[in-house]
Amino acid sequence: MLLHLSTWAEIGQFLQRSRTIVIPIGSNEQHGPTGLLGTDWMCPEIIAGEAQKNADILIAPTFNIGMAQHHLGFPGTISLRPSTFIAAIGDWVRSLAAHGFEKILFLNGHGGNVASIEAAFSELYAEASFARRPAGFALKLCNWWDLEGVGELAREQFPTGHGVHATPSEIAVTQWAYPDSIKSAEYSPQIAPWGPIREAMDFRARHPDGRMGSDPALATPDKGRELVMLAAQSLVRELDAFSRESMPG
Amino acid sequence: MLLHLSTWAEIGQFLQRSRTIVIPIGSNEQHGPTGLLGTDWMCPEIIAGEAQKNADILIAPTFNIGMAQHHLGFPGTISLRPSTFIAAIGDWVRSLAAHGFEKILFLNGHGGNVASIEAAFSELYAEASFARRPAGFALKLCNWWDLEGVGELAREQFPTGHGVHATPSEIAVTQWAYPDSIKSAEYSPQIAPWGPIREAMDFRARHPDGRMGSDPALATPDKGRELVMLAAQSLVRELDAFSRESMPG
Amino acid sequence: MLLHLSTWAEIGQFLQRSRTIVIPIGSNEQHGPTGLLGTDWMCPEIIAGEAQKNADILIAPTFNIGMAQHHLGFPGTISLRPSTFIAAIGDWVRSLAAHGFEKILFLNGHGGNVASIEAAFSELYAEASFARRPAGFALKLCNWWDLEGVGELAREQFPTGHGVHATPSEIAVTQWAYPDSIKSAEYSPQIAPWGPIREAMDFRARHPDGRMGSDPALATPDKGRELVMLAAQSLVRELDAFSRESMPG
Amino acid sequence: MLLHLSTWAEIGQFLQRSRTIVIPIGSNEQHGPTGLLGTDWMCPEIIAGEAQKNADILIAPTFNIGMAQHHLGFPGTISLRPSTFIAAIGDWVRSLAAHGFEKILFLNGHGGNVASIEAAFSELYAEASFARRPAGFALKLCNWWDLEGVGELAREQFPTGHGVHATPSEIAVTQWAYPDSIKSAEYSPQIAPWGPIREAMDFRARHPDGRMGSDPALATPDKGRELVMLAAQSLVRELDAFSRESMPG
Amino acid sequence: MLLHLSTWAEIGQFLQRSRTIVIPIGSNEQHGPTGLLGTDWMCPEIIAGEAQKNADILIAPTFNIGMAQHHLGFPGTISLRPSTFIAAIGDWVRSLAAHGFEKILFLNGHGGNVASIEAAFSELYAEASFARRPAGFALKLCNWWDLEGVGELAREQFPTGHGVHATPSEIAVTQWAYPDSIKSAEYSPQIAPWGPIREAMDFRARHPDGRMGSDPALATPDKGRELVMLAAQSLVRELDAFSRESMPG
Amino acid sequence: MLLHLSTWAEIGQFLQRSRTIVIPIGSNEQHGPTGLLGTDWMCPEIIAGEAQKNADILIAPTFNIGMAQHHLGFPGTISLRPSTFIAAIGDWVRSLAAHGFEKILFLNGHGGNVASIEAAFSELYAEASFARRPAGFALKLCNWWDLEGVGELAREQFPTGHGVHATPSEIAVTQWAYPDSIKSAEYSPQIAPWGPIREAMDFRARHPDGRMGSDPALATPDKGRELVMLAAQSLVRELDAFSRESMPG
Repeated sequence: MLLHLSTWAEIGQFLQRSRTIVIPIGSNEQHGPTGLLGTDWMCPEIIAGEAQKNADILIAPTFNIGMAQHHLGFPGTISLRPSTFIAAIGDWVRSLAAHGFEKILFLNGHGGNVASIEAAFSELYAEASFARRPAGFALKLCNWWDLEGVGELAREQFPTGHGVHATPSEIAVTQWAYPDSIKSAEYSPQIAPWGPIREAMDFRARHPDGRMGSDPALATPDKGRELVMLAAQSLVRELDAFSRESMPG
Repeated sequence: MLLHLSTWAEIGQFLQRSRTIVIPIGSNEQHGPTGLLGTDWMCPEIIAGEAQKNADILIAPTFNIGMAQHHLGFPGTISLRPSTFIAAIGDWVRSLAAHGFEKILFLNGHGGNVASIEAAFSELYAEASFARRPAGFALKLCNWWDLEGVGELAREQFPTGHGVHATPSEIAVTQWAYPDSIKSAEYSPQIAPWGPIREAMDFRARHPDGRMGSDPALATPDKGRELVMLAAQSLVRELDAFSRESMPG
Repeated sequence: MLLHLSTWAEIGQFLQRSRTIVIPIGSNEQHGPTGLLGTDWMCPEIIAGEAQKNADILIAPTFNIGMAQHHLGFPGTISLRPSTFIAAIGDWVRSLAAHGFEKILFLNGHGGNVASIEAAFSELYAEASFARRPAGFALKLCNWWDLEGVGELAREQFPTGHGVHATPSEIAVTQWAYPDSIKSAEYSPQIAPWGPIREAMDFRARHPDGRMGSDPALATPDKGRELVMLAAQSLVRELDAFSRESMPG
Repeated sequence: MLLHLSTWAEIGQFLQRSRTIVIPIGSNEQHGPTGLLGTDWMCPEIIAGEAQKNADILIAPTFNIGMAQHHLGFPGTISLRPSTFIAAIGDWVRSLAAHGFEKILFLNGHGGNVASIEAAFSELYAEASFARRPAGFALKLCNWWDLEGVGELAREQFPTGHGVHATPSEIAVTQWAYPDSIKSAEYSPQIAPWGPIREAMDFRARHPDGRMGSDPALATPDKGRELVMLAAQSLVRELDAFSRESMPG
Repeated sequence: MLLHLSTWAEIGQFLQRSRTIVIPIGSNEQHGPTGLLGTDWMCPEIIAGEAQKNADILIAPTFNIGMAQHHLGFPGTISLRPSTFIAAIGDWVRSLAAHGFEKILFLNGHGGNVASIEAAFSELYAEASFARRPAGFALKLCNWWDLEGVGELAREQFPTGHGVHATPSEIAVTQWAYPDSIKSAEYSPQIAPWGPIREAMDFRARHPDGRMGSDPALATPDKGRELVMLAAQSLVRELDAFSRESMPG
Repeated sequence: MLLHLSTWAEIGQFLQRSRTIVIPIGSNEQHGPTGLLGTDWMCPEIIAGEAQKNADILIAPTFNIGMAQHHLGFPGTISLRPSTFIAAIGDWVRSLAAHGFEKILFLNGHGGNVASIEAAFSELYAEASFARRPAGFALKLCNWWDLEGVGELAREQFPTGHGVHATPSEIAVTQWAYPDSIKSAEYSPQIAPWGPIREAMDFRARHPDGRMGSDPALATPDKGRELVMLAAQSLVRELDAFSRESMPG
């Protein structure tokens, strides 16, 4: 069930049977010579969209701009500062909690978001902690590549050249979902270099075409389909376990 | 051209021929008994998406959560506070300006966003004004229903019962774009009441089913198609004029 | 009744008979070659001051610095950023609400303030909306030129050359109130140009003497008196209606 | 010269001969049974207004709402939080510095403002200090009762019962300036108690009628006139010395 | 009793017998040619540490970075902006108040901190004042040199050349506590100049070696010992009086 | 070399030969029945203090309060919210960068700090990234238990019962450094439970005595000494590598 294609009354009914919701969250940022700028927010959107076809789960609109300051040296990247990102996540959660959602799972598509999302969770919990009261909600961060079985499948599909940015697995996912937007390019070197992540100019100097340790040429739509189907199933199980978790507060 | 389905190199090439970009912006909020929660962000996304099919214009990802505090009494509404909204718009603009975009048009789908978006523009311009330097970019807010000819068409299509929230025109647009998500309900009264907009509890007390002055039963997918086609053409002209405007700074 | 010339005990007594208060709010900014820098905050102060002579209404001190970033290219302009403005309006309202004021009307004298004031209202209401509780107060923004009958009178007094900044109507009001500070100058052109409002340097380039579309030479103290007297009467009626409005929360 | 009764061109001319400006700053807060709520912002406004009659000095509009959280237990008090106050002072200074003002003197009327004003100065200077550049302006805080000779006169006028809040000296100043607003009441005890300053409820419990250590019955308009005349002369000398101070940056 | 060398259970037991805690607070900043960068936070830490040896009082960890923007022109200075400082003090207090501490004394070692600490107190109290509820805690700022008898002793020890920054008294305290870190240098002039405190570049231009009005050569470890012993005793008395103060809220 | 026991001139000299500095950073929070509240900030302080005895490295004062909102249910815990923590880290870094430090290593002692510290780094880098300029500094986060060889040693010392909070390794470090503050208690169960980390009330319900997965009874001062000596050596090597890293900006 997609929240944005539902009415408020339908969400009211859903809340009678479940207090859990998924927020696909990612980033809009360069993904090397052939990766789409929307890769990191489209991957969790695609997986969550697939998962809700066969399960009674609720998917929020996609949080599509994340923390991508290090990619600002490449045209098309849009980034929030961590402080803005934390404030925005806070308002999303406060909105959903006001409706009675108690388990909010962020399905994340961007490694660079992890620290800021966790900081946002702590900022939210701290309101309750300083006031010595229960928060009333539990938050969970789940990277799609950490869903059960997904990492194993990706390592099997791409034993070398997976890397950490503009990876063949994420590109494969978008290739399957957006077959009209498959791009090609020569990669040089075939597998991109690694390095520390600092400000945008430093990043671009170290990673001239935007990739980090990856060979996106390995991606195929079919591998993308395999990843999506597996991730969607794992997401449903993850949500089921999260929903059943008790809240001591 | 959709930014999120492009690579950074493609955006770099676009910047050689244009410095203009469109950001569809809206809100995710209740739209009465039959309107979709995503209505206000999907309308500008649909119109901008249509416009770029026949013109060399660039569409950013959709800014899908806006200022909807007054709708928080209805399940599914997600709102940013104005201060968060202003901060986030600021980071979007700073990101795009860093790449060299000089004309940034926000195609808006939610009346409740207008004040905060304009405040965000002033916040951004103020940085330059206090420093006595040019901003380097021009910002424009354009509600889709204010695009040339659109208001006239809507008044012609819906001479009575248009109202200001959960209007038949916006619902028609989403009906055309998402025909599988057309909902129906009995409306009572057929045309909803009006009232001041204050906090969420007050709003729900005044507008029990969420509508303001509208009769959404008048919407049809075909009327939606007419609105989208006209709005898309007007948007292209609007962008052309905006692009050609000189910047004295 | 002027709050600043009252004691706390007198305000306590007023609260026994009314929960309504007026805040004159404006801006301190250039007003063309002859307009006073204080025009936009003095106009609502003058009108409210006149209104309280004949009615049992309460006028707060004047909020004299608003959102005028676009005028910072002209000496004497003082501006708050929208974020600061929103924070300050918030504290004014929270202070008054703590005393039991329930209806707070901002009588505004500057068009450039409108968006930020409305954003400030939403920021305040949002606190209640996220917490699912009544706000306890209702806020109303009223530009003095929108008071009943005032626009008609101004159009009658100034059929051409009214414009939108450094208008003859606002200058007439200050001429009546501050006859010792009437200034004169040659205007060239007689009616000033219009243009979009962006950062200060851009604004000054488009409007070299600060006016927008106006011919201030048309102002006279007598026309100012007419405007003040009419506006003061309308304000009293507006407050009466606002006071009698019920609060569903 | 009063800035708000001047045009931008007149301020431009003033800047040719001086880079110094005075900002009267105070608070709107309870002042005991007979003190006016506006006492603390009216006193510096009165003194500065008097001073500019005989000297070529420039007076900005009055900053009329300060840090008065501890008085919020009494109706009519309006307070900014320190964080808001600091932000607003920052924008005032940045506005004036953008026009070329280099010496900005805050003539203060409220002891409770002192810490926050000084913190605001440090916040402004810190921008330059972190960037290792000159600030371009010098800020000075001057309480009107600390102007040369004023304390001596007040001690002479009121050898006992002066106290620190709702003092006979500040009330005398407003009595002279606003003779139609002189109030009277029985005081019990004649001289009010002292105590620490904490939150509003604590303050009101310790100081039931709002006074701290003072006997306002000692105030007379004539004593007020003496204080204003002396303070106005001292202010002119203070400004002269401040203007002539060199700026090493 | 030092909080950081205690367990949570021991603090829980302490709270059964006392609701009072001391926070040593200072700054890490240049202290002239021979003063240690840590002088201002080590002095209150040393005094509080000494005091708790003979009295059942509780000392929190040291808040070691304060408001020292004006010293940033000298290597090794670390400063918070006032806004950051206020936020951090707020979280310290909210944490301790959540545990039930009701009397929180900040033993301060840096004059430049005073305004920001007091602003922080007001920011905290304002939360309660706007909400018309008791704060639940009382805050006290106490400079170590203002503890009973300490100023007299310092004036006796250093009749000339005490000054206000890099004073012989504070340097003596650190000499006693850190005898291995006693530094020496030629001072020129022997007693340093005075001047206003503005941004860092201005400060360094006025005070080339960092001292303000002081002759640190007068410091000896033995004088430091005398100061510490006296201050420690006075602190215990100060805490005792503060603990016994009633809270009307 | 300890910065707080140095003069500004000595730091100026150090900057001639190195641009690298270490900031020990931790948290002040409950550490189970026997762990000291200061454990997490004392461990990096102890290790860094040891390291500088035999190497020409510079250690800043300890950043002793971190992100510990989940421990606020236990007396003595002091926590910053992530937003405050990020702001404070920002000011520390801006201060040090103003002096010319280019490599700033945060030696961290608290797992709960990691996300917020990384978010703070991104916040700092983003300033440069939005402005398309080099940051001028490189930041590194290094948990002391991740220093080369330390994890292996801890696993060897404590093959079972290490856990993640109130671990025997961190308690051993403080036992060695503060032998007079070794506490003892009965543990029940001997090895503490694990669970998700949310708000403070939830945390305390899941972990009644504060430990997570650990058996602190395994700690001994001697094991602490081994850990400190190894960590100190690894830190020196880590700093050496970090110092020699080139900065492409």
